[in-house]
Amino acid sequence: MNYKMIIYSVCRIVMAVGATMIIPLLLSIFYGEGITLSYVIPIAVSLLFGAAVYIKPPKNKSMYAREGSVIVALAWIIISLIGALPFYISRAIPGFVNCLFETVSGFTTTGSSILLDIEAMPKSLLFWRSFTHWLGGMGVLVFVMTIFSSKDTRTSYMMRAEMPGPMVGKLASKWKFTVRILYRIYIALTVLETIFLMLGGMPLFDSLVHAFGTAGTGGFGIKNSSVAFYDSAYIDYVISIFMILFGMNFTVFYLILARKLALIKENNELKWYLVIIAAATLIITFNTLPIYKSFSETFRHSFFQVSSIITTTGYSTADFTRWPMLSQIILLMLMFIGGCAGSTGGGIKVIRIVILAKIAGNSIKNSASPRSVFSVKSDGKQLEAAVLKGIMTYLVIYMIVFALSMILVSLDNKDFTTTSTAVLTAISNVGPGLGEIGPAGNFAGFSALSKIVLSIDMLAGRLELYPILILFSPHTWKR
Amino acid sequence: MNYKMIIYSVCRIVMAVGATMIIPLLLSIFYGEGITLSYVIPIAVSLLFGAAVYIKPPKNKSMYAREGSVIVALAWIIISLIGALPFYISRAIPGFVNCLFETVSGFTTTGSSILLDIEAMPKSLLFWRSFTHWLGGMGVLVFVMTIFSSKDTRTSYMMRAEMPGPMVGKLASKWKFTVRILYRIYIALTVLETIFLMLGGMPLFDSLVHAFGTAGTGGFGIKNSSVAFYDSAYIDYVISIFMILFGMNFTVFYLILARKLALIKENNELKWYLVIIAAATLIITFNTLPIYKSFSETFRHSFFQVSSIITTTGYSTADFTRWPMLSQIILLMLMFIGGCAGSTGGGIKVIRIVILAKIAGNSIKNSASPRSVFSVKSDGKQLEAAVLKGIMTYLVIYMIVFALSMILVSLDNKDFTTTSTAVLTAISNVGPGLGEIGPAGNFAGFSALSKIVLSIDMLAGRLELYPILILFSPHTWKR
Repeated sequence: MNYKMIIYSVCRIVMAVGATMIIPLLLSIFYGEGITLSYVIPIAVSLLFGAAVYIKPPKNKSMYAREGSVIVALAWIIISLIGALPFYISRAIPGFVNCLFETVSGFTTTGSSILLDIEAMPKSLLFWRSFTHWLGGMGVLVFVMTIFSSKDTRTSYMMRAEMPGPMVGKLASKWKFTVRILYRIYIALTVLETIFLMLGGMPLFDSLVHAFGTAGTGGFGIKNSSVAFYDSAYIDYVISIFMILFGMNFTVFYLILARKLALIKENNELKWYLVIIAAATLIITFNTLPIYKSFSETFRHSFFQVSSIITTTGYSTADFTRWPMLSQIILLMLMFIGGCAGSTGGGIKVIRIVILAKIAGNSIKNSASPRSVFSVKSDGKQLEAAVLKGIMTYLVIYMIVFALSMILVSLDNKDFTTTSTAVLTAISNVGPGLGEIGPAGNFAGFSALSKIVLSIDMLAGRLELYPILILFSPHTWKR
Repeated sequence: MNYKMIIYSVCRIVMAVGATMIIPLLLSIFYGEGITLSYVIPIAVSLLFGAAVYIKPPKNKSMYAREGSVIVALAWIIISLIGALPFYISRAIPGFVNCLFETVSGFTTTGSSILLDIEAMPKSLLFWRSFTHWLGGMGVLVFVMTIFSSKDTRTSYMMRAEMPGPMVGKLASKWKFTVRILYRIYIALTVLETIFLMLGGMPLFDSLVHAFGTAGTGGFGIKNSSVAFYDSAYIDYVISIFMILFGMNFTVFYLILARKLALIKENNELKWYLVIIAAATLIITFNTLPIYKSFSETFRHSFFQVSSIITTTGYSTADFTRWPMLSQIILLMLMFIGGCAGSTGGGIKVIRIVILAKIAGNSIKNSASPRSVFSVKSDGKQLEAAVLKGIMTYLVIYMIVFALSMILVSLDNKDFTTTSTAVLTAISNVGPGLGEIGPAGNFAGFSALSKIVLSIDMLAGRLELYPILILFSPHTWKR
């Protein structure tokens, strides 16, 4: 284990993220909120982290999977700890565990909140809260790209964790160039959404903050009633469509830019992602038709909630815990499924679900005809046994983390619906769940232990499970 | 597909099972219930099934996995249809779907009931209802043995479905001899339990019926308050211990008879089965301590409910839906886990859960140290990749059946707890769930569609998923 390199890398990430708090600091001064110190202290802490290691970089820069995982996991935890300080020092959120939960929820682009009155928060803190989504989304894109792309450079080991999972085509030959393209697409889409929202009459601040929440598929809003506050079909549709865009594999946007449209048509995951969205919207529209005044209103709410949940964003325009059970179950399935691989969305990912379904289908055929050979194909290519094993193992680990977390959260003695969906929404980085933690509820009622367990779940889910488990595994720290 | 052989085998099984209805018929005459025809008609139907094929057995007796699966699935469905007739013709249960649900629940050793007043039923029907558990348990033992034992004879193809799953050591060299040993153990344990219950002051009829329910890990009682009616610590402990015995791999009893006790110590699954029971009982005892008067009473109820749920029997001495959420979640996990492979218990099976946990652990180690090789061992032997793949695929199929069933059952618009645990308890062949379908509730409130879906789930779960899915797969019927 190259400890020096781990410390060096983590400190650099912490410094970079901490420095971005200068933006809410400036906003805070501009609005005259009188909470300048709440930003100055964490910024100073972050800079100290950076300064401590910049003086003497380690000579041995070799890193492997183990180091990569530990760096990612540690960095995400430490930036959450430091990112929580503005909420804590300003006393805008009482109790450090609450501040940490809110910040982990931000950086992991989950969007679960413990705030009872969002609108009472200082504006700069609301900005920072949503900005953590946007930064988290950027982090996820790089993280995912390094996992799924080949290991040609030392840099790609940086966050590589030998993750079993579906392959995402590499965008460009150089890792740095890939990251640059991704960030340009990410920023361009964020700006585009901000403009579209402003055209609908949304103020600049609100538009920017909602674009941050959409881009990271996070879901923190700035109104107690989330997006329902704006009561505009135009705004609902703009956000719905951008949520769907940010839940897509970013390779798709690169292929559009590179005019390789034929390759998009071959994308198996994209096809299923859109089919699932269409089917879920249709079923929920017909199921909730008796609740709303018109078909168009029903469709709008169904489409919004489906887009929000499958992309694991978590914005809401309706309290779906009051919908019929069929609609709730469909949304629950979407929480499991999540967005596409290579997007900022969470969950198990569409491609994994598609492949798991194919494995199940083949296995039944194979049991009926033991002498025949059935292979699982994706995008026309036959998948190797190791890939299939990796995806199945992912489901196994997901279920185990789910089960153990449920035992711990059940100590709060909340009802079964709340207990189970709290864990689900945390691991899948969605935001709301069912029961007490629906769109109209929040996570304030949980104990400190549950908030910590759910925070770990959010981190585990966000980082494709392995890095957090590797960090906590005794095996990693042997010798 | 050897259709003639399928028809021949199914008809023979149907005739054999139908003939056993002579016992409740005699009981009915003895008690003077006046429902003789309710048994005579289904017995006649079963005999006709048999007679139709006994005249001319097929010349080509070759059978493969496909035929075996179809035979098992079809036989279980048809005996359920015929076994439902006594309830239907006597009008003791209104509506054929209700009669079918109750009978499927019986033969699959589930124990979920739609009866609102069990005690109002004619005694011979109560006997038949519990007897289906006992017959189902016998069927399961043979089925499981043929799946997990080697394919040396034509007979072993009979119910073989090339099932991926953990291997159970073959008891004896000949399949017929193995079955004979199993049945002797099964009958001996049933008689033993009956005697033990009678020693506790339970009437003969009640003792016999409860021994049937325990042996098949079914759980149908004859009192509205299940085993709680007898209000006896002795009876509770006798049933608890026999439930645990019937949830064990029957190989264990054979090894005891053969004085090979050293081999039992090596049994990995048995060790974990007992560890899980001990741990769950301990946690639930401490969690429910404030509810009961004394430690001994708390322990008694905890131990009984844990034994009942992990073995997927479903008897109850307490309404655990009123217990704290931690206890409910623990019981829910036990429903997933189920009994040991090679027992009459349902669920995913302890050995599969143990191996899945090992796969997860190895995968985390392997991600941290990609160059090392970690193998999954069970009973000291390294498991082949195909076995591991089979077990993971089993989980995948289990989850898919679970998800699809939940969508259909949610059309009843019951609460989430009831909807989800109804499906879980059906696939795992437990009996009670949480919410409306707890020990004090029942399945009467579900629609006909849900009852059919849950019946299919019970059959699928009981037959290790594959045979029912193979029966319904279009692939099976091609060409």
